[in-house]
Amino acid sequence: MGGTTLHQSGDGYQAWLGFHRIAPGELYDQYAVYNRITVTEKDDIVRTAISELSRGIASILGNEPEVAESGVGVPCIAIGTFGSNPIVDRTFGNDTRSAVGPEGFAIKSDKDNRCIAIGASSGSGILYGVFHLLRLMSTGATIDKLDLVENPVNMLRMINQWDNIDGSIERGYAGKSIFYANNRITGDLERVRDYARLLASSGINAISINNVNVHKYESMLLTQEYLPDVAKFAAIFRSYGIKLFLSINYASPLEIGGLSTADPLDPAVREWWRGKAAEVYAAIPDFGGFLVKADSENRPGPFTYDRDHADGSNMLAEALKPYGGIVIWRCFVYNCKQDWRDRTTDRARAAYDHFKLLDGRFMDNVILQVKNGPMDFQVREPVSPLIGAMEATNQMIEFQITQEYTGQQRHLCYLIPQWKEVLDFETYAKGEGSSIKRIVDGSLYGNRFSGFAAVSNIGNDANWTGHLLAQANLYGYGRLAWNPELAAEGIAEEWIRQTFGGNEKLVRTILGMLMESWSIYESYTAPLGVGWMVNPDHHYGPNVDGYEYSKWGTYHFADCYGIGVDRTQASGTGYAAQYRGANYDRYESVESCPDELLLFFHHVPYAHVLHSGKTVIQHIYDTHFEGAERAEQLKAKWDSLTGSMDEGLHKQVASRLAEQAEHAKEWRDMINTYFYRKSGIADQLGRKIY
Amino acid sequence: MGGTTLHQSGDGYQAWLGFHRIAPGELYDQYAVYNRITVTEKDDIVRTAISELSRGIASILGNEPEVAESGVGVPCIAIGTFGSNPIVDRTFGNDTRSAVGPEGFAIKSDKDNRCIAIGASSGSGILYGVFHLLRLMSTGATIDKLDLVENPVNMLRMINQWDNIDGSIERGYAGKSIFYANNRITGDLERVRDYARLLASSGINAISINNVNVHKYESMLLTQEYLPDVAKFAAIFRSYGIKLFLSINYASPLEIGGLSTADPLDPAVREWWRGKAAEVYAAIPDFGGFLVKADSENRPGPFTYDRDHADGSNMLAEALKPYGGIVIWRCFVYNCKQDWRDRTTDRARAAYDHFKLLDGRFMDNVILQVKNGPMDFQVREPVSPLIGAMEATNQMIEFQITQEYTGQQRHLCYLIPQWKEVLDFETYAKGEGSSIKRIVDGSLYGNRFSGFAAVSNIGNDANWTGHLLAQANLYGYGRLAWNPELAAEGIAEEWIRQTFGGNEKLVRTILGMLMESWSIYESYTAPLGVGWMVNPDHHYGPNVDGYEYSKWGTYHFADCYGIGVDRTQASGTGYAAQYRGANYDRYESVESCPDELLLFFHHVPYAHVLHSGKTVIQHIYDTHFEGAERAEQLKAKWDSLTGSMDEGLHKQVASRLAEQAEHAKEWRDMINTYFYRKSGIADQLGRKIY
Repeated sequence: MGGTTLHQSGDGYQAWLGFHRIAPGELYDQYAVYNRITVTEKDDIVRTAISELSRGIASILGNEPEVAESGVGVPCIAIGTFGSNPIVDRTFGNDTRSAVGPEGFAIKSDKDNRCIAIGASSGSGILYGVFHLLRLMSTGATIDKLDLVENPVNMLRMINQWDNIDGSIERGYAGKSIFYANNRITGDLERVRDYARLLASSGINAISINNVNVHKYESMLLTQEYLPDVAKFAAIFRSYGIKLFLSINYASPLEIGGLSTADPLDPAVREWWRGKAAEVYAAIPDFGGFLVKADSENRPGPFTYDRDHADGSNMLAEALKPYGGIVIWRCFVYNCKQDWRDRTTDRARAAYDHFKLLDGRFMDNVILQVKNGPMDFQVREPVSPLIGAMEATNQMIEFQITQEYTGQQRHLCYLIPQWKEVLDFETYAKGEGSSIKRIVDGSLYGNRFSGFAAVSNIGNDANWTGHLLAQANLYGYGRLAWNPELAAEGIAEEWIRQTFGGNEKLVRTILGMLMESWSIYESYTAPLGVGWMVNPDHHYGPNVDGYEYSKWGTYHFADCYGIGVDRTQASGTGYAAQYRGANYDRYESVESCPDELLLFFHHVPYAHVLHSGKTVIQHIYDTHFEGAERAEQLKAKWDSLTGSMDEGLHKQVASRLAEQAEHAKEWRDMINTYFYRKSGIADQLGRKIY
Repeated sequence: MGGTTLHQSGDGYQAWLGFHRIAPGELYDQYAVYNRITVTEKDDIVRTAISELSRGIASILGNEPEVAESGVGVPCIAIGTFGSNPIVDRTFGNDTRSAVGPEGFAIKSDKDNRCIAIGASSGSGILYGVFHLLRLMSTGATIDKLDLVENPVNMLRMINQWDNIDGSIERGYAGKSIFYANNRITGDLERVRDYARLLASSGINAISINNVNVHKYESMLLTQEYLPDVAKFAAIFRSYGIKLFLSINYASPLEIGGLSTADPLDPAVREWWRGKAAEVYAAIPDFGGFLVKADSENRPGPFTYDRDHADGSNMLAEALKPYGGIVIWRCFVYNCKQDWRDRTTDRARAAYDHFKLLDGRFMDNVILQVKNGPMDFQVREPVSPLIGAMEATNQMIEFQITQEYTGQQRHLCYLIPQWKEVLDFETYAKGEGSSIKRIVDGSLYGNRFSGFAAVSNIGNDANWTGHLLAQANLYGYGRLAWNPELAAEGIAEEWIRQTFGGNEKLVRTILGMLMESWSIYESYTAPLGVGWMVNPDHHYGPNVDGYEYSKWGTYHFADCYGIGVDRTQASGTGYAAQYRGANYDRYESVESCPDELLLFFHHVPYAHVLHSGKTVIQHIYDTHFEGAERAEQLKAKWDSLTGSMDEGLHKQVASRLAEQAEHAKEWRDMINTYFYRKSGIADQLGRKIY
């Protein structure tokens, strides 16, 4: 009967910061000792840390702890940057201090468990340390004999909001923006603050607050009309150790500057951006910098003026440099007006082809932001070969937390396992040991700037993410950005315990559901890495030919004989040759290409036999029948948890899982019917295909 | 060098009422005699007629005619209802008078060509007579020795506007509404008046001014907030002999009436509608009545209350009856949430299945409005078997002038030949001689009300219809509604001469283009009557599977062996059995089914040989290659007219034809590629298929 009890509001708003009350028992006694916080500093972020720690402990124990400037001799939690708090300074030696980086922290219990010290080099480190301790307490961990040092592995741990100032969210599946409505910033800044808490607690330290597609009103965020509002957001995020960035419109000099060009080599344009940077930094002295989508999907960019991306980004970087600002330049550049009849152009090649040859030409405060795969956040694609291909250029990776192509938060899809595969991918960029995670953390090439970015999945739905279980992706993203070595299971379990409490059956059940959810979603959607079999525009639901005759460079080439895209060097688009060494060999050969990416790299007959021993067509049938069945089982598993959590939370997830189970059948039948009609090959098991 | 000269403004706004100045010559001399109009009446419509006649003659001759109350002894055009004008009364004998119906007219020149008399029983008849005379003069016809009587064949000759009060137009392809903007009526009533002129000149006598899908604000047209505005429209149309109707929301008693039900058998609901009718007729004494889309595509209706369409429509008819108003009840009722896996439900059957058994239950001021085909205005469908199947029920036919599925006024598609085929279709409803036109004109069953309705193709584009040549469809619709015996070629030629003048090469060229345009459009789009291979929602452009796995009941069932929908009684949905006698036999049998409807009625292998001698697959390839080529030729033909018309008019059409030629290639390639990939059968001529 030990462990925490359940205490939920039922709407999921508290997310993983609900801090369930702990039941009387051994752990309660261990935690309850620490009913006093000592701190001497009054710094903004330290104040946040104190407030979070008080609030968390009050919730877990039922009593608000005392906060004092000293606490020698009594049980306490002492927090402070090194040199500010006698208990902290007494606790940590020089070795520990030097091991703690700018955003890191150390936590140590004294020998008789009467004091826990949290020391750091900065307010942010304190805040992360506090959230770490709260995480231990809210996952039911023991906190005696603590002795640890943590530093974030990645310098930038960033969230990209794709919010528009009219209140809509591009690819948002959880309501409207919490930032904007009706072309102004929201009146509800408390909600923004609550979002900052969630982000900081998972380790996030940067946020861009508007959509990378920057339209008329969003362009004006850089003007005096909106900068005071932007500064309000910056202040909120600052108090949680999060730097604020803006997505900018490359054509701003024309659209808001009254110039007749946005040519990056034009002196007047450069001068305009320098002035604009000065203006922004006057309003927000610790402003992070600009996020830029240029020359992509009809957005303006340097190509308009026959300049390249280095010219384009360096011009902005020069303007931001005096203030320590950075330019994050997205590499999602491809021909979005392709003729579907043209089989030589390959969208998958585009980012590498555009950027690789610019290596070395970018200023050191430019970072290229590269999507994890070469296409666009499909449920399965290979890892982008551009990551690691530019040794003299800062790079960061972009993930998509919002489930654009992975069920739009109506289907369950825990994405951390997918991201882990990407991060662990061996690129051979500098020989063995050149995994993606070592490139994006900057260690492989010793980059000045590097890190993670991801598109947020939140909106103003009460539970933030629409599907309650999709909170695990937001939480997990932050944790993984902090430390890519964390296991997907471990992150999931942390999240479950913090969100639902420690009932072991519940924890095991939800953990199992999360861990198999990506595989389930993959199994009933587009097969074998081919991707894109979705309805155009909104990207929800099955449509095998939805992108087949389009201008978007997204094809499967299925005919009555076979399916897949030949991207080999030998006979196809040559994309496979963008990979190095063993990766190239593996993808180039139809024999060695992994099953799950076969159709991404090769066009094969339906009767082609996979490594699994099945034919391609039978694989399609089997995975789709099984996937729909497994979606049903997800629902059944959740149903088995009735009564073991707040009824409101249970109901909201149950309804999404029921919808998923139904929709999975639609996927199953549409995909199977399409391929049965096209191939004429019957299912070996004679199941119903329409 | 005779004939009229060209004189155009270049934007097409004048449409067919440009009345080009006639060049000096024989015809000029003949026309110029009539420079005086005599009339004694001051009736609203007669005043319109005088104004139109003056304006037309002034434009044709260059001199404004004199208008006087008498004109005995001098050359004149005398107009008047019988008994009002001495010249008119002197001209027409009793036989003629009794041959002229309520909206008809007689025109006669006196023996020495010094006077033309236009006599009628009503102001409307006068107006139609005036437009008839002007049509003769503006098509370069001789007007000596005139002696004719014309009566409209159809009682209702109606236009349905699908305009929404926010200014948008459902299925509108020529700009925004000329009636509404921003949830109010337009400020530009002159444009509405100019539209009324166009309609009256082609013979239209009724209009519904809002979309059949009636949403929140449109429902309020029935309230005091909007009725004064509606009355303004009614006044404009009244002066051109056109009765005004409103589309109503069946749920009005709930939405604007504050009742808790819209049950047609509920006394309070009946009372509410009676009161509403009184209110409407108080504002508009000659109000036409209600147009109703109920229980269709998510619109409310009597089904909600377990009532049927007779209950639903009779309730409204009862409310309108005291005022002579009528209820036009659309039969476009089907299951729009069909499961694509369900092959037993057939949307084509729906209208007949829903309405046939209600025959005899409708009040005599109810008219059922039936679309020309069983599906939805496809480029090719069979004729609706419901038309003529209800001998004790008033019916009218609905056409779609706006080119929703026929190129959206970006492609040229002259629709009169399609409508003629429908009208001439022999139903065998009362044995031989039971053509559709005899049913919808009311003569076959002696209906009290009957006629034509059609969805307008106009918007606020300068030229009304987006594609200038699409004006021919609006003009032609009115002419055909007046007299279904008119030939498609004749109507086209009238329109061309009035619009572009009488250059013979120009007339022949455009006539040829119009007459082959439907066949061209059909040839490069969905083959052999199967329909629906368009992009969902907006319905523009090719998408073979666009509606294949949808809920809309719109399938082609193509697999690697064959294609088509089995609608036979023997093995399919049984739809063919809704036809009578020889029609049933012809459609039921794959041998006798006409090629152009083969895939509508039968599922056949790609190697099935058509009556044309070609296989289905080769037919698909051939028609698509030819269609795209013929679209190119349309462009070339138009180009050959450079210099023979106003440059502005020439340019606007040239640009649409260029777009069509390009888009036809997209159709060609997408359809051919789809079927080549699916069938694996090569083109016999080895042409390029992707």
